[in-house]
Amino acid sequence: MKDYKIIEVKRSIFEDNDADARRLREELAAEGTYLLNLMSSPGAGKTTTLKRTISMLKEELKIGIMEADIDSDVDAKAISETGVRTIQIHTGGMCHLDADMTRQGIKEFGTKDLDLVVLENVGNLVCPAEFDTGSTKNAMILSVPEGDDKPLKYPLMFSICDVVLINKCDTLSVFEDFSKEAVEERIHKLNPKAEVIFVSAKTGEGFDKWISWIRKELKEYRKS
Amino acid sequence: MKDYKIIEVKRSIFEDNDADARRLREELAAEGTYLLNLMSSPGAGKTTTLKRTISMLKEELKIGIMEADIDSDVDAKAISETGVRTIQIHTGGMCHLDADMTRQGIKEFGTKDLDLVVLENVGNLVCPAEFDTGSTKNAMILSVPEGDDKPLKYPLMFSICDVVLINKCDTLSVFEDFSKEAVEERIHKLNPKAEVIFVSAKTGEGFDKWISWIRKELKEYRKS
Repeated sequence: MKDYKIIEVKRSIFEDNDADARRLREELAAEGTYLLNLMSSPGAGKTTTLKRTISMLKEELKIGIMEADIDSDVDAKAISETGVRTIQIHTGGMCHLDADMTRQGIKEFGTKDLDLVVLENVGNLVCPAEFDTGSTKNAMILSVPEGDDKPLKYPLMFSICDVVLINKCDTLSVFEDFSKEAVEERIHKLNPKAEVIFVSAKTGEGFDKWISWIRKELKEYRKS
Repeated sequence: MKDYKIIEVKRSIFEDNDADARRLREELAAEGTYLLNLMSSPGAGKTTTLKRTISMLKEELKIGIMEADIDSDVDAKAISETGVRTIQIHTGGMCHLDADMTRQGIKEFGTKDLDLVVLENVGNLVCPAEFDTGSTKNAMILSVPEGDDKPLKYPLMFSICDVVLINKCDTLSVFEDFSKEAVEERIHKLNPKAEVIFVSAKTGEGFDKWISWIRKELKEYRKS
């Protein structure tokens, strides 16, 4: 029994982005570049996660990072200090990247010599989930302080991800309401195939599993 | 000196929502209802903040809460348990509310007998900042775990807010990189008039200031 009303309000219609995304995915496959689209809320730890990932993989893989931001370059600055190739994409206020915007970035960036390109999408759990960027796979980060109910509230995002990192696990003792079991169950209810990995980008906890996931992905991608 | 490139990608054009928002603001003023648009990232603590705010004000004000969510009703359920009038607005995937969507909610809700209506916008620091909902004032919540750099990365949101609550201040000892001084300075650089209030919706810290801000606002609104 609900004692409040639910009303539906209209949504806008999107252009056909899916065909364009498929084309970009094929173009990237032809040149052997694996593109990982990394999404999260603002402040979930995308940049810190990337910095640790780069430090663990840069000897074995040629990595490039595409930073999408509305109009700052805070993250691109932080990432470029790791020594990997970095590009900043300004979305001019747009809240997400679509396949054509991603292609513009890829072209400017030049990715042919790279094994792994990570697209750090705009910090947003809504819009980026609705637009296929043309990436090989989708990853997202949910941080413990955001709460274990987020799969209930942003279901599309969790539905489209191949891997979900639960970050800031070093703060689980402070956020005692957060249940690892509940969040994993909610994610798998939406998306049974999603890999869920508990990590802390601050302490490095769980990064062995995350790095293994990337290595396995790249190995399979090269074979296909 | 930057060692990465910055490229601009195109943005879409919005319809004229501003005139519609002004009309809604006048309609609300005519009926004496103060509408507060509350925005934040997912998981910053909008619902917990509202629950504490309601418990402190419900004896002196007639309060109504409009919950905007993509398609869940987790928050509306939590808020309706406080006993105040609640409505759930489903945005059908839309990442924000515009003035017309807000008006649809207001009409269904019936606000004439209410003093204060809070619109809990979709959890998103980007799109809601671009669309004037027609609210009397804008409030936002930034939580400590998100980091003190968020005003640099989501400047529009901080520019349009009349009041910014910095929530989860009970976790400052865990997130030792977060500087209260830095975040306040960054907000005021974008928006010198914004009121910045440090709170914890969990412990109640700082809520005396927040409640005073609301009381002062409603007093001035009634006089005007």
